[in-house]
Amino acid sequence: MLQNIRIVLVNTSHPGNIGGAARAMKNMGLSRLVLVEPRSFPSSEADARASGATDILENAQVVATLEQALAGCTLVLGTSARDRSLPWPMLEPRECGVKVIEEAAKDVQIALVFGREDSGLTNDELQRCHYHVHIPSDPTFSSLNLGAAVQVLSYEVRMAWLALEGQSHKVEKGDAGEELVTMDELERFYEHLEQTLVAIEFLDPQKPRHLMARLRRLYGRSSVSRVEMNILRGILTETQKAARGELLKRKE
Amino acid sequence: MLQNIRIVLVNTSHPGNIGGAARAMKNMGLSRLVLVEPRSFPSSEADARASGATDILENAQVVATLEQALAGCTLVLGTSARDRSLPWPMLEPRECGVKVIEEAAKDVQIALVFGREDSGLTNDELQRCHYHVHIPSDPTFSSLNLGAAVQVLSYEVRMAWLALEGQSHKVEKGDAGEELVTMDELERFYEHLEQTLVAIEFLDPQKPRHLMARLRRLYGRSSVSRVEMNILRGILTETQKAARGELLKRKE
Repeated sequence: MLQNIRIVLVNTSHPGNIGGAARAMKNMGLSRLVLVEPRSFPSSEADARASGATDILENAQVVATLEQALAGCTLVLGTSARDRSLPWPMLEPRECGVKVIEEAAKDVQIALVFGREDSGLTNDELQRCHYHVHIPSDPTFSSLNLGAAVQVLSYEVRMAWLALEGQSHKVEKGDAGEELVTMDELERFYEHLEQTLVAIEFLDPQKPRHLMARLRRLYGRSSVSRVEMNILRGILTETQKAARGELLKRKE
Repeated sequence: MLQNIRIVLVNTSHPGNIGGAARAMKNMGLSRLVLVEPRSFPSSEADARASGATDILENAQVVATLEQALAGCTLVLGTSARDRSLPWPMLEPRECGVKVIEEAAKDVQIALVFGREDSGLTNDELQRCHYHVHIPSDPTFSSLNLGAAVQVLSYEVRMAWLALEGQSHKVEKGDAGEELVTMDELERFYEHLEQTLVAIEFLDPQKPRHLMARLRRLYGRSSVSRVEMNILRGILTETQKAARGELLKRKE
């Protein structure tokens, strides 16, 4: 599906940026690069920055016009600064990723178009796009490096693709992928903890204050796994032995 | 709020990447850069790639150790490849952005840590992090350029920030509504914990296994408040006394 998506770079000045874009694409599983009148290509600088994504550079298509680059595409999205005199359907990168993947799933051709380093896409070029995409950068320093812009949009395309594929690697939260303790086990731990704190004379049963409540709150929110619980219980058992003087006897 | 977030680059080899990271940060509204033993800095190459974000380079802090870089931080997130022998709480970039902004809103210090270009962060460095962040790149070509990785995570931080600003939600305080401990305090706690576990003979310094790593993971993700830390430290101090037989002497 991702092979239906092409990245189009228009009139790129710095070949290093072409290499950076190629690397970002390959990292995100994209492979089709089209260059409209690059100033210098092929280039050793592009190869160096591609850092192993040279296959993308070798297979890159170099064309003379944007029209040629967009041949066969049914959806074209162009990157743009937010404020344009011409109002146009505008997407954020996340929406762009979803839109691209929705269309790519229909097996149609899609182009993501990036303009010149200094001046972006012309109004004429932007009018060839179905949507404009704006990366919501800081207004006081808004212009991203070309490779960085390709990275952000390729990343959002990949995230949308992973979500669709059901491959979004939903991660383990606090439990680090291990089985969590049950409430009963947690209660037995609190009993063991309380006995131990009394044994080491940290907790005065006559004046318990809020000590156990505070410790319950701490461990209660920590999503303790069974492995971690075994460690904590082991520490308590050894602490109880220490309080009974068993460690010293052992050494005698 | 964004000024509570620092980007930490460890042992960066190529100064161009430092410049690329600075530009990505400034584009996304971040400003605090900390460099742990960079190979070459300041550097004209970094200045060139920063492309106007030179203020971030000028204000960058250069330190000798990761510990110094993390001073004052209550939340540390480290970038990592997915597969590690030691399972750890793992976040996707989007979750990372949300987590960072949630904490930044509480006015605590947060660090996003990026490793070496060739080998990333060491296991020891990763164990100082509360969470690991993995950018879900293509497994066949998974290693992003350092500046590109900074771009993706900074972008997600900005997206989470914009979402929060848009919501103008009232932000809750820490988990216990109390001031959270800093990384320094947490490190001192781990030292104290380790000494205590050796004293009660639960931890064998000759065969430490993953015990401390597991305990770091447990407490590291628990957003421990200062009040809770005082309790934990008090328990350790009493346990050490028990191990020395002082409790028994008291009773004699």
